[in-house]
Amino acid sequence: MQGIEPLIYGLGLAGAAVNAASGVLEAGRKPFDLFGMVVVALAAALGGGSLRDMLLDRTVFWIADQAYLITALVAGVATFLLARRVRLPAQLFLLPDAIGLSLFTVVGTSVALAHDAPWLVASLMGVVTGVFGGILRDVLCNEAPVVFGGTLYGSAAWLGALTLIALPELGVGHDVSALSAGVVICTIRLLSIRFKWHLPIYSARR
Amino acid sequence: MQGIEPLIYGLGLAGAAVNAASGVLEAGRKPFDLFGMVVVALAAALGGGSLRDMLLDRTVFWIADQAYLITALVAGVATFLLARRVRLPAQLFLLPDAIGLSLFTVVGTSVALAHDAPWLVASLMGVVTGVFGGILRDVLCNEAPVVFGGTLYGSAAWLGALTLIALPELGVGHDVSALSAGVVICTIRLLSIRFKWHLPIYSARR
Amino acid sequence: MQGIEPLIYGLGLAGAAVNAASGVLEAGRKPFDLFGMVVVALAAALGGGSLRDMLLDRTVFWIADQAYLITALVAGVATFLLARRVRLPAQLFLLPDAIGLSLFTVVGTSVALAHDAPWLVASLMGVVTGVFGGILRDVLCNEAPVVFGGTLYGSAAWLGALTLIALPELGVGHDVSALSAGVVICTIRLLSIRFKWHLPIYSARR
Repeated sequence: MQGIEPLIYGLGLAGAAVNAASGVLEAGRKPFDLFGMVVVALAAALGGGSLRDMLLDRTVFWIADQAYLITALVAGVATFLLARRVRLPAQLFLLPDAIGLSLFTVVGTSVALAHDAPWLVASLMGVVTGVFGGILRDVLCNEAPVVFGGTLYGSAAWLGALTLIALPELGVGHDVSALSAGVVICTIRLLSIRFKWHLPIYSARR
Repeated sequence: MQGIEPLIYGLGLAGAAVNAASGVLEAGRKPFDLFGMVVVALAAALGGGSLRDMLLDRTVFWIADQAYLITALVAGVATFLLARRVRLPAQLFLLPDAIGLSLFTVVGTSVALAHDAPWLVASLMGVVTGVFGGILRDVLCNEAPVVFGGTLYGSAAWLGALTLIALPELGVGHDVSALSAGVVICTIRLLSIRFKWHLPIYSARR
Repeated sequence: MQGIEPLIYGLGLAGAAVNAASGVLEAGRKPFDLFGMVVVALAAALGGGSLRDMLLDRTVFWIADQAYLITALVAGVATFLLARRVRLPAQLFLLPDAIGLSLFTVVGTSVALAHDAPWLVASLMGVVTGVFGGILRDVLCNEAPVVFGGTLYGSAAWLGALTLIALPELGVGHDVSALSAGVVICTIRLLSIRFKWHLPIYSARR
């Protein structure tokens, strides 16, 4: 299973690229210029992992390895330029985004476990890595975070993070656990879009 | 006075629970789902201490001790479920919230002093610990922070933090100083609600 | 060239003061009280350098040296009081703000280079130091960040940061490089105001 490391690295970069593109598409509804677009794209792509690393007191991942920063930058600018010429339907991004969410969550949880975080904290770090970039993107665009409603997103990430933590306790190896967790997240996410699954919303008695 | 340590720990957890509940009630005015509620509750309960610890380069308190995370999580979900069945009047939270503000501020200032922060920085860290969770809650809900107006809140925290720093200089012991600071914050906060005390607001000459 | 160190330190404090004043003027359009004003002023003055230091895992600059915190606090309160008596036209701040942007960017880039950050990361840290305080100010005021549109601001900072990194590669000394970078930022910023230079904005094909 050693051979899947480069694949995971490549998929991680792809996840950053997809998040950067989603940042540009979201920010595009505002009268922002190229600079604003790039900031929102970088926040969307790198924000989740940055918060995880600052909370865990690790070296921030895109400072340790510039490849993430360059990928997010190129993806953001390319989306900015491409959107002028080609219609980019939002559906185009649903599958890559689900894969990106899975990867970011699995990587984030693994990093926290390797950093000796307790299991509940580690699962939360997985969710933070997967979801916080999108929250930061929406805050910078002065919108309420879309992941706070709609189909399952952060909750799918949390279930996957818990899967990743539980399986090794049952004797499953790390690589199989990581793969299973990613499949759980991606499957729940896509099924919830297909069948319009929602979490309960708040309704107060007055 | 050794005997008050467990009391302070318990009150600190209670403060986190009250802040989490306030996060759910605030987020309840938005069309957020259970996941959004939990994120806002955790941000309200843990945000202030997290920023303090990241600024001071300490281990983040809820990573070092999961009890705060679990308490905030349980309190947030319980508020979400309870609000469907029982009417939760906002007044119910005023006293626990004032106690929580006092405790978070006293703990935050003490932590910064123990970390050899200069006195002005330490007083600010107390305010950050007491107030930033509520600011983050409002930013995530796409609202202007309520603590930036209305009755005395952050200013009460600042006065208490300065009390905690000044009294030991006058020869008062640490426990008595901490108790006095907490009483100062709680009293000013409750009196300001009762008598509608306000700080001056900005009025520019045009 | 040793003799310019105190000048740079003084200009850095002046930059913090100008940013704090801009925070008060921006927050003044909201019904915030003195406490809200002070928080927004401190966020505007200290937010950029704080994020840089937390990302690079350095001691936060205003915790290491209280002079920045005191300067920002005094400047914020003074602006609050002064605005009641004297009309403060926004144009008054354009030149000091351009100088502040130049200084913060040059200092931020230098700090990151001294911290062995790769060149692209270092240039971004310069931009973060120069621009993030203003972004945070606007997020706290529940507004979309003004630096995401309008005349050149963050892009001027980025060009200056790249100048500061490129010149030493061509054999230019550090002080001359820093001075040149500052002049580049300040000149582009002021020319872009005078001639209404803009970056392209996003326009999607539908």
